[in-house]
Amino acid sequence: MKPSERRIAEGALFTDQYQLTMAQLYYRYGLAEKKVQFDHFFRSYPDYGVHKAGYTISAGLEWLLNWMGEARFEEQDIAYLRSQTEPGGNRIFADDFLGWLGKNGNFDSLTMRAIPEGRVAHPHVPLTVVEGPLAAAQILESSLLNHLNFQTLIATKAARIHDVGEGGVVLEFGLRRGPDRGAVAGARAALIGGADYTSNVGVSAVLGFPPKGTHAHSMIQVFMALGGSELDAFRAYADVYPDGCLLLVDTINTLESGIPNAITVFEELKRKGYKPVGIRLDSGDLAHLSIQAARMLDEAGFPDTSIVLSNQLDELTIWQIVTQIREEAGHYGVDPDPLIKRLVYGVGTRLITSEGDPALGGVYKLVAVHDEGRWVPAIKISETPDKTPNPGHKHVWRLYDLRGKAVADVLSLDDEDPREMDEIALHHPSDHAKYRTLPRSEVSEVEPLLVDILDEGRLVADLPPIEEIRRRRAADVERLDPGVRRLMNPHIYHVSLTRGLWEHKMALVEAVQNNNSGE
Amino acid sequence: MKPSERRIAEGALFTDQYQLTMAQLYYRYGLAEKKVQFDHFFRSYPDYGVHKAGYTISAGLEWLLNWMGEARFEEQDIAYLRSQTEPGGNRIFADDFLGWLGKNGNFDSLTMRAIPEGRVAHPHVPLTVVEGPLAAAQILESSLLNHLNFQTLIATKAARIHDVGEGGVVLEFGLRRGPDRGAVAGARAALIGGADYTSNVGVSAVLGFPPKGTHAHSMIQVFMALGGSELDAFRAYADVYPDGCLLLVDTINTLESGIPNAITVFEELKRKGYKPVGIRLDSGDLAHLSIQAARMLDEAGFPDTSIVLSNQLDELTIWQIVTQIREEAGHYGVDPDPLIKRLVYGVGTRLITSEGDPALGGVYKLVAVHDEGRWVPAIKISETPDKTPNPGHKHVWRLYDLRGKAVADVLSLDDEDPREMDEIALHHPSDHAKYRTLPRSEVSEVEPLLVDILDEGRLVADLPPIEEIRRRRAADVERLDPGVRRLMNPHIYHVSLTRGLWEHKMALVEAVQNNNSGE
Repeated sequence: MKPSERRIAEGALFTDQYQLTMAQLYYRYGLAEKKVQFDHFFRSYPDYGVHKAGYTISAGLEWLLNWMGEARFEEQDIAYLRSQTEPGGNRIFADDFLGWLGKNGNFDSLTMRAIPEGRVAHPHVPLTVVEGPLAAAQILESSLLNHLNFQTLIATKAARIHDVGEGGVVLEFGLRRGPDRGAVAGARAALIGGADYTSNVGVSAVLGFPPKGTHAHSMIQVFMALGGSELDAFRAYADVYPDGCLLLVDTINTLESGIPNAITVFEELKRKGYKPVGIRLDSGDLAHLSIQAARMLDEAGFPDTSIVLSNQLDELTIWQIVTQIREEAGHYGVDPDPLIKRLVYGVGTRLITSEGDPALGGVYKLVAVHDEGRWVPAIKISETPDKTPNPGHKHVWRLYDLRGKAVADVLSLDDEDPREMDEIALHHPSDHAKYRTLPRSEVSEVEPLLVDILDEGRLVADLPPIEEIRRRRAADVERLDPGVRRLMNPHIYHVSLTRGLWEHKMALVEAVQNNNSGE
Repeated sequence: MKPSERRIAEGALFTDQYQLTMAQLYYRYGLAEKKVQFDHFFRSYPDYGVHKAGYTISAGLEWLLNWMGEARFEEQDIAYLRSQTEPGGNRIFADDFLGWLGKNGNFDSLTMRAIPEGRVAHPHVPLTVVEGPLAAAQILESSLLNHLNFQTLIATKAARIHDVGEGGVVLEFGLRRGPDRGAVAGARAALIGGADYTSNVGVSAVLGFPPKGTHAHSMIQVFMALGGSELDAFRAYADVYPDGCLLLVDTINTLESGIPNAITVFEELKRKGYKPVGIRLDSGDLAHLSIQAARMLDEAGFPDTSIVLSNQLDELTIWQIVTQIREEAGHYGVDPDPLIKRLVYGVGTRLITSEGDPALGGVYKLVAVHDEGRWVPAIKISETPDKTPNPGHKHVWRLYDLRGKAVADVLSLDDEDPREMDEIALHHPSDHAKYRTLPRSEVSEVEPLLVDILDEGRLVADLPPIEEIRRRRAADVERLDPGVRRLMNPHIYHVSLTRGLWEHKMALVEAVQNNNSGE
């Protein structure tokens, strides 16, 4: 795609056709400016097969806001829409609508509340609430979901990988296997969720992060093809990067060639007053090789060098490596704890693709229409109670227990405030039978989760630097119960409705069903 | 990301840090301009778990070439690299190298051969061969893999979905669940592989395709919230789009409300002289509902309207739907064949994410270095014979049998031409024991697969419009044996080495092993 084409593909036309056909219908029926509310939420955590997530990390909002600020139906976009015809030859979009779209087809009139980036988020809780004119709010759907679904998915995977690595540094290496330009957004999301650095230079430049990297097998191969050896290649690397000498040791034979040669070079560096950084293992039994590498490096007097692991890593393989090291290291006279502390995880394919569950099913549902001076809830009666959205204007609260751990997210009616309740009734969002009450005295904090982001298009929130977003994520994950963070079969975190919202929802469902059966 | 940041993130810095640190090392050691060859290939077909691919569809090349033509280390990129420091504070990149990079850090000196987009491709066969100065060829790695891995992955999934749909139209709907901007490349790849249209407006504009779409549940909900009904919403849609009336029928109840209301509107359209397009089913048992919908539409006199299916479709669910319709339709007096012919598949999440196997493991391996007037093969001895790349300068041929079906791809030495052989010896790429001979008389055609694309940066190939790429794909898939196209456990297509290349590879492996053990 050429740059001029990219401007077309990624501008206001970065949407689905039906958003535009619906917008024209709304325009034609005088509904385009009708005030409405859409809620964006997801219905279930990423489920990777043998393991699943018990929480997600919200990400993608700032880049969505950047897109919303820039996207305009420019002349070339309008010209393309004007050229569209039905199979019969009649034009799909009429001139009056296209004129309106050129003037009004932007997001400057939308109001938005959202759960900020980096925060823990749960199913059925609105991550984003959009309020404003129907046509603009409708057109936004595709791009909003595109931006937020993917980054939240990847940030969640990264948080799990970070958590299972017991504090070891996590490097994002996914560019080559990532989804075209999506690899850039994925790297940002990985940094939000728990990666400490990325190999991706461009996104590092944009975010002000130092990128990380070493060298590839090809560097060794070049030296060897020219009559040199692995050792020659290592020496060259140490010569050019004496302060950053991290050597890939598996090109020929890890234990017999790579590590001994790396140690030779490390000794040479040490004599010159430099501190070698470490080695990278990219194939074989990474747990076993880590133990052997640690033993060899320790004996050679390099107990502090990093051991970078890469090759199809994810939270499951890292957990397996850490477990195996704890079991095996002692047999080889290696203390497992310092070894685990020096490990660095280079995570590529399985992070950038969210291996096991490659999409977050975020949806964007109409929940209310403003008519004759009041909000009318919109509700769609689906087959499954679980899929019936929670209607209308709402607040979202997070409750913390006396330990300071989050115990539930609660959706309330607009005029309810759990901070003022003596006891908080928690209803399961769809199951009548599931219900409990929490005395206010057992709740240490009631925190409103949604933050004002846009007020009729005007940015009213701070968009903090990524370091601040990363701190938020760390703090939020810390306040989760360990059971919710568990790799396998996590505890189900409670997402509940207040009694008021529950009764409101039930009354609405009943009214729609009666109305429907009476038709 | 703001547009100015996007230029940084997606320009020459759209690469991994280690490509740049290696480039500096090559520069420092006088190797930056050394002529080398890299082969890009993948080692295994996408494997989706219960089913797997028996072929792939090459895609992504044109957009890679666009990127290569634009990417330059601009002043702002160089400034960022200049600012990078080691933890100790010393700069990573020196001024002389950065000066060289600003002048020479582009891809204008590279020569490239490739298997054209839309063609069937198999493991171990080079999809792309890059020849030129070491530093430039090395830096290209990340972006080349990023562009080609993802589009080839998605085109392959689309080809399978198209194949199992028995000619039914396939619509790509993945923008909202796709990987940020990667959804654009994914939509293009889907169109190459077998989708007939996409809902993505921007990519349709760029490719000159008409986008497709209908309306969402939200349109019905708006009318209902304002006191109207599903029927009112359908009538409004038919009013605005009388030539393109395709109605989503599952907002309330598909069989009791949606389809009867759609038929009412279709009858009204028909009386006005319009031809209704069809209905869309987005939930429930799609096979069963298709049969009921066909029965109701047939009885109402609309036997030609489309029935669009959507909701987590992929090749497996489509195969299941088609199978179930063949078994069940007769019980309801519906002829399955015309019903299957009127089905349209709206495929979103599972296509754009390649559900089951979300990444193609394409690699880019150094295979030869030009030194003292000759090519020296580079080889990396890995633990597994399957991973040992095929060395040096090669040709790639596709052999067709007397039926015109492709029977094998053959890699040969540069100076071998199977067209001139009386019999063609086919060696398995890594297994000594696997070997067969094909008499030339049983081969109807020997086709060279690699096409010259770039000659020292100059484009020497036609980059055809996407319609032509789609025709290539259709023709190539048609020439595969049905066993190779099978949904489950496909026949393994033969990828072989000529005797010459096989003996050359064995000699090299032995030489490297001897050299290595002698160190």
